[in-house]
Amino acid sequence: MPQLPRGGCWRAVITRARSAGLFAGPRGASGGPGCTRDAPSGAGELRGELDRFGGVSVRLARLDAVHRLDPVAFQRALQGKCAAAIQKWRSEGRVAVWLHIPILQSRFIAPAASLGFCFHHAESDSSTLTLWLGEGPSRLPGYATHQVGVAGAVFDENTRKILVVQDRSKLKNMWKFPGGLSEPGEDIGDTAVREVFEETGIKSEFRSLLSIRQQHTHPGAFGKSDMYIICRLKPYSFTINFCQRECLRCEWMDLSDLVKTENTTPITSRVARLLLYGYREGFDKIDLTVEELPAVYTGLFYKIYHKELPDSYKTMTGMD
Amino acid sequence: MPQLPRGGCWRAVITRARSAGLFAGPRGASGGPGCTRDAPSGAGELRGELDRFGGVSVRLARLDAVHRLDPVAFQRALQGKCAAAIQKWRSEGRVAVWLHIPILQSRFIAPAASLGFCFHHAESDSSTLTLWLGEGPSRLPGYATHQVGVAGAVFDENTRKILVVQDRSKLKNMWKFPGGLSEPGEDIGDTAVREVFEETGIKSEFRSLLSIRQQHTHPGAFGKSDMYIICRLKPYSFTINFCQRECLRCEWMDLSDLVKTENTTPITSRVARLLLYGYREGFDKIDLTVEELPAVYTGLFYKIYHKELPDSYKTMTGMD
Repeated sequence: MPQLPRGGCWRAVITRARSAGLFAGPRGASGGPGCTRDAPSGAGELRGELDRFGGVSVRLARLDAVHRLDPVAFQRALQGKCAAAIQKWRSEGRVAVWLHIPILQSRFIAPAASLGFCFHHAESDSSTLTLWLGEGPSRLPGYATHQVGVAGAVFDENTRKILVVQDRSKLKNMWKFPGGLSEPGEDIGDTAVREVFEETGIKSEFRSLLSIRQQHTHPGAFGKSDMYIICRLKPYSFTINFCQRECLRCEWMDLSDLVKTENTTPITSRVARLLLYGYREGFDKIDLTVEELPAVYTGLFYKIYHKELPDSYKTMTGMD
Repeated sequence: MPQLPRGGCWRAVITRARSAGLFAGPRGASGGPGCTRDAPSGAGELRGELDRFGGVSVRLARLDAVHRLDPVAFQRALQGKCAAAIQKWRSEGRVAVWLHIPILQSRFIAPAASLGFCFHHAESDSSTLTLWLGEGPSRLPGYATHQVGVAGAVFDENTRKILVVQDRSKLKNMWKFPGGLSEPGEDIGDTAVREVFEETGIKSEFRSLLSIRQQHTHPGAFGKSDMYIICRLKPYSFTINFCQRECLRCEWMDLSDLVKTENTTPITSRVARLLLYGYREGFDKIDLTVEELPAVYTGLFYKIYHKELPDSYKTMTGMD
């Protein structure tokens, strides 16, 4: 059993901690319930902020003396004879140190690394390093692990035709659904509609989520994991104007032909069968429909996708 | 329309490029179809490897001279009067530069940043910086955007009871399903089973995927997006031994009571209704079942989740 909150708990606690400004950095940062903003920690130049998980966070951008500090002095401040922040934090029972380093101050990364710090993540103009001081292996939460790609199965019920492409880049030219990677912060359905339009020129709207694929150590994801989602879209334009750079071919294919062809991927073949099943016996049999709801703790909204409930189950007492 | 392959194409092309060693770095690295391993690029100390997207990749760990190189000389090699790698790459029509920097050589990050490089990502003991040389905004693929959390709805059909917890960390103590964040490379179902056991002591096995939630700028995900998946699990142990640090309460609750209670989250309430619907009318009505398949291009395996097809649709000719 973990000593630090993890998983579901960890997510919720961080949510509270961060919304309460516990990770906000400098002394006097806006606080909240349980906020330890008036408890600076660490020796010499290195003021840290405690978080409620027993960690301490140092934001170099907010240290007055950082511009006077050279890498050797920084290393001494972390672990030297006169000033020894790490030993002090350890003696105070801190379990982890977080270093937030602006990219132009990256001269401090190597000295920290030589003391055992490693990258937690970096993006754009800053990096975050961590050092685990607790017992056993680190129990700090990781960073994002998955890229998300979305394909659109654009099906025209009137003609029973489905929009398919052959990628220019593939070794074998197999029929598949147009799609691509989500942009940061982009909803699943929006990615499907955008990528379909970019690749084929077809305008469509989101109907449902049909299938999810998970793959790990993905070469196209810089070795991270890949989540690939296929949505059902309804077209409202029909003239193909496909991207010559991305696609070799693009056409409206009879759904039964896509079901029968060998010249496609296993996932495309399965989703084609799903669509035929849904077309014949009702899309409610295959659709995961979407609903937008407010998050309980963060005040944000989220989208949830699942098999739509019959009305009799929706209206049971106790439904929020 | 993008000039560089993006989205679906981009994923596939990178897959090929990387599997063909196009990003592998040094001259003479194992190559493959279209591999440009014998086309070093850049000036002075900075040998780069071209990739088939028109980018050039420099791996500092593999440069003989890197230990003799100080940050000022490095900056000059990138953009100086005598040696000017960036200008040379630009004049050669390269659209992007990738810098792969071991953490102990991070003294080279700030000089690169002062020339416009920024972090693409960093993990553990190395960082990767990019500089876009092409026209318009960068069209380079991003890094992982989502963390993935999984909860287990452990339902005992014999007693009609469902396993629920109240997190110790929450502001309100609402009943929910045990769950937590996926470890890197961990399959969805394995996360559900592991987290359920860690939180409650209950042993279970994966049955199906029931719902997916997507949320952006998630405080518990360091500002990245969050994908939260709820699975249906079948218990094969029943004595609760819950984690006191994570959970305030844990119990087997009658499913109809969870459907009725106000003291739960919207997503838990909906999934409780789904389970009641599935229990009464067949779980095939709500389940996304899993299938493992070989990937077409990477040689890896993936797992795909969708509504199970009736046999008549599975056995249609043309099924791979």
